[in-house]
Amino acid sequence: MTSELQPVPCDLSIEAGWVVPVEPHAVVLENHAVIVSKGVIADVLPIAQARQRYAAAQTVSRPESALIPGLVNAHTHNPMTLLRGVADDLPLMEWLQGHIWPVEAAVIGPQFVEDGITLAIAEMLRGGTTCANENYFFPDVQAAVYKRHGFRARVGLPVIDFPTAWAKTSDEYFDRAGEVHDLWRDDALVATAFAPHAPYTVSDANFERIRMLADQLDLPIHLHTHETAQEIADSIKQYGQRPLARLDRLGLVTDRLIAVHMTQLTDAEIELCAQRGVSVVHCPESNLKLASGFCPACKLQHAGVNLAIGTDGCASNNDLDMFGETRTAAILAKAVANDAKALDAFSALRAATLGGAKALGFEAKVGSIEVGKQADLACVDLGQLETQPLHHVVSQLIYATGRHQVSDVWIAGKAKLRERVLVDMDTAALIANARQWRERIAAIAR
Amino acid sequence: MTSELQPVPCDLSIEAGWVVPVEPHAVVLENHAVIVSKGVIADVLPIAQARQRYAAAQTVSRPESALIPGLVNAHTHNPMTLLRGVADDLPLMEWLQGHIWPVEAAVIGPQFVEDGITLAIAEMLRGGTTCANENYFFPDVQAAVYKRHGFRARVGLPVIDFPTAWAKTSDEYFDRAGEVHDLWRDDALVATAFAPHAPYTVSDANFERIRMLADQLDLPIHLHTHETAQEIADSIKQYGQRPLARLDRLGLVTDRLIAVHMTQLTDAEIELCAQRGVSVVHCPESNLKLASGFCPACKLQHAGVNLAIGTDGCASNNDLDMFGETRTAAILAKAVANDAKALDAFSALRAATLGGAKALGFEAKVGSIEVGKQADLACVDLGQLETQPLHHVVSQLIYATGRHQVSDVWIAGKAKLRERVLVDMDTAALIANARQWRERIAAIAR
Repeated sequence: MTSELQPVPCDLSIEAGWVVPVEPHAVVLENHAVIVSKGVIADVLPIAQARQRYAAAQTVSRPESALIPGLVNAHTHNPMTLLRGVADDLPLMEWLQGHIWPVEAAVIGPQFVEDGITLAIAEMLRGGTTCANENYFFPDVQAAVYKRHGFRARVGLPVIDFPTAWAKTSDEYFDRAGEVHDLWRDDALVATAFAPHAPYTVSDANFERIRMLADQLDLPIHLHTHETAQEIADSIKQYGQRPLARLDRLGLVTDRLIAVHMTQLTDAEIELCAQRGVSVVHCPESNLKLASGFCPACKLQHAGVNLAIGTDGCASNNDLDMFGETRTAAILAKAVANDAKALDAFSALRAATLGGAKALGFEAKVGSIEVGKQADLACVDLGQLETQPLHHVVSQLIYATGRHQVSDVWIAGKAKLRERVLVDMDTAALIANARQWRERIAAIAR
Repeated sequence: MTSELQPVPCDLSIEAGWVVPVEPHAVVLENHAVIVSKGVIADVLPIAQARQRYAAAQTVSRPESALIPGLVNAHTHNPMTLLRGVADDLPLMEWLQGHIWPVEAAVIGPQFVEDGITLAIAEMLRGGTTCANENYFFPDVQAAVYKRHGFRARVGLPVIDFPTAWAKTSDEYFDRAGEVHDLWRDDALVATAFAPHAPYTVSDANFERIRMLADQLDLPIHLHTHETAQEIADSIKQYGQRPLARLDRLGLVTDRLIAVHMTQLTDAEIELCAQRGVSVVHCPESNLKLASGFCPACKLQHAGVNLAIGTDGCASNNDLDMFGETRTAAILAKAVANDAKALDAFSALRAATLGGAKALGFEAKVGSIEVGKQADLACVDLGQLETQPLHHVVSQLIYATGRHQVSDVWIAGKAKLRERVLVDMDTAALIANARQWRERIAAIAR
């Protein structure tokens, strides 16, 4: 009797050789279509059935590709894309104080933020990333740029105990945070989070104020912490407590906390994070490159802590490649845990998608290919030489795929990358702009 | 008076925005040309001078690119490219005994070796690799395939204390090794090495025989060793010695030794390797993925040990991406040494080129862009979004470049990749062949 049913109109049908929904876990659907209407995933079903049931305004056919949820970069400083490789092979504090901060002092401002994020959006889209957890100054500019480019983001409202180009006093940080939050509180694409810089740059009083406001405004708290052994030692010296214990005393160890880096953790701290619903953002390449340490990703996962993946900024990483970052997370976890089963391919992909979405409080909206969620999707061409033969789709995605194999990207159903071409961004103009920044920064760094 | 000089004819002038010669160390030459005649690098000079002095039959202009020595993959099992991702997320012995060996037992033979290496050559060329240190069975087939595709390689002459498809007895392993060596001993592109599998699979008697023959025939000895803590424990139990001590007793710890993996090393062992001129091949991604351990790359480098980089086989890695592998080596070295200065970008590039060439005994021929060396070269497009802005060329090459940015590759002056297209290989046929192997292997693995 199906032949008598009228096909249902829809905006888009993406027919893929494989759909990896992430939820349910460890499933690969062969020859499936994802149906999109009004930016939302309306159905996921075999291609043959999709062709009968739906009349799609547009059909994208990718028989050699895997369709996955758009990747979520759960910790980044995207304006710093303009500082990619400006200083390498240096310890964290020498790198920050001797190189990054002096250059930033000279260039920071709305234009730097706008141009850096714009370049970053282009790079992220070309690598299958559809959502970012942004952490930098000028969140007003950040939010506007993400919105203008139709890119999903949570922008951090910075709080730090010294004056910057963004604010001079604690009151000003909080005032400006409130203003930016108010402007974006109902936006479908862009939201805010509190972003206290780190335990060593934020006072107890400011953490308490953040805790209270985050509860009132229902916001996550995006914080670098337990990044290095030095940070722990300094905290014990200054506060008589490890940072996590101090944060717990101040009421911040809750499911609002997005704890970034976390290379130094005791078993008790891992257990605490699990009990309280803390999300941990693992930035393995930044941690390696700055010799910060090793996040115990496998232990966190086994304890039930929500694990997300972040690239960190391009000044420390030096890219926004979530495929590369997730691969590093997956292989590093095994050596750190001394267990080759640690963070298997499916779990790594989950961390890079639904784990990130959950950390950001976006898990009801994105992070998996489920009916009712926003159509944030990436299509990955597995037909290239580098991913042949194709014994296992998700193994290939995590352990062999390069980000340049991403062919198409959608955010909220809107095409952002089509057959490797950015739909609504001018690549040549972006490169020309990056070159201007290169000249300007070179003049300072000299 | 230069205007009166006749331009010198040459085969090829490659004009690049940047030439990174590797030797001398830490040098980047801006707007330089590399002149090639009869497969050999004839000159390296500023573009403007090159245009005056040389009349090139062909000029390749790449103003946005860096020209580097072709990368040397110093440890790989290329036939296993056909097993990419066939079994993941498993410990070494379970992975080998439960998955890899059973599948290999069913498929191994000349055709598997030929097809796997052919696919691997295509992948390597597309990633800027021009030379491989091959370690598998059927070195006769290996050598013929590398030669046919004009790819530089040292093929291992396997010795292992149990019967395989290649040989049944120790005598047969040595007889066949001698035959293959004899056929290829004078070849300009393909050479051989002894390749005893590992200390735990080769007897004292066979190691002694290898030592003697390697001296007589002037061959390197390509050996997996000190890969896991288990290997060390087992060696102490069986021989009362750590593998390196046992190898030393047998006379193998010399500058012929290409020691692969080396994740378990005491300071005294590092010192011994330095004194004896042992080359260490670091395979960081394989070591991480199989949870084998961490090679102390920085300590080795500081001790003066020649360091090379290898991808290992695609069944364990799962790719032949020397850009990715070198990046992992560079960032991992920092965290392992707890020193962000460890294995800086220039040193990492050196390990991936000249270090590999030296390990293979090819350093007089390749590994750097020096007059008189073979023109094994790779051109890397740094003009793409992902490597902008371009503050430092070698930082970008190591920390931000993806292998898909390799545009052109030459081996001995012969173009092998031109603007991302393989010059003399049929990509569609390679993929079709890989798919056939997929079906065949899937039928076995089930």
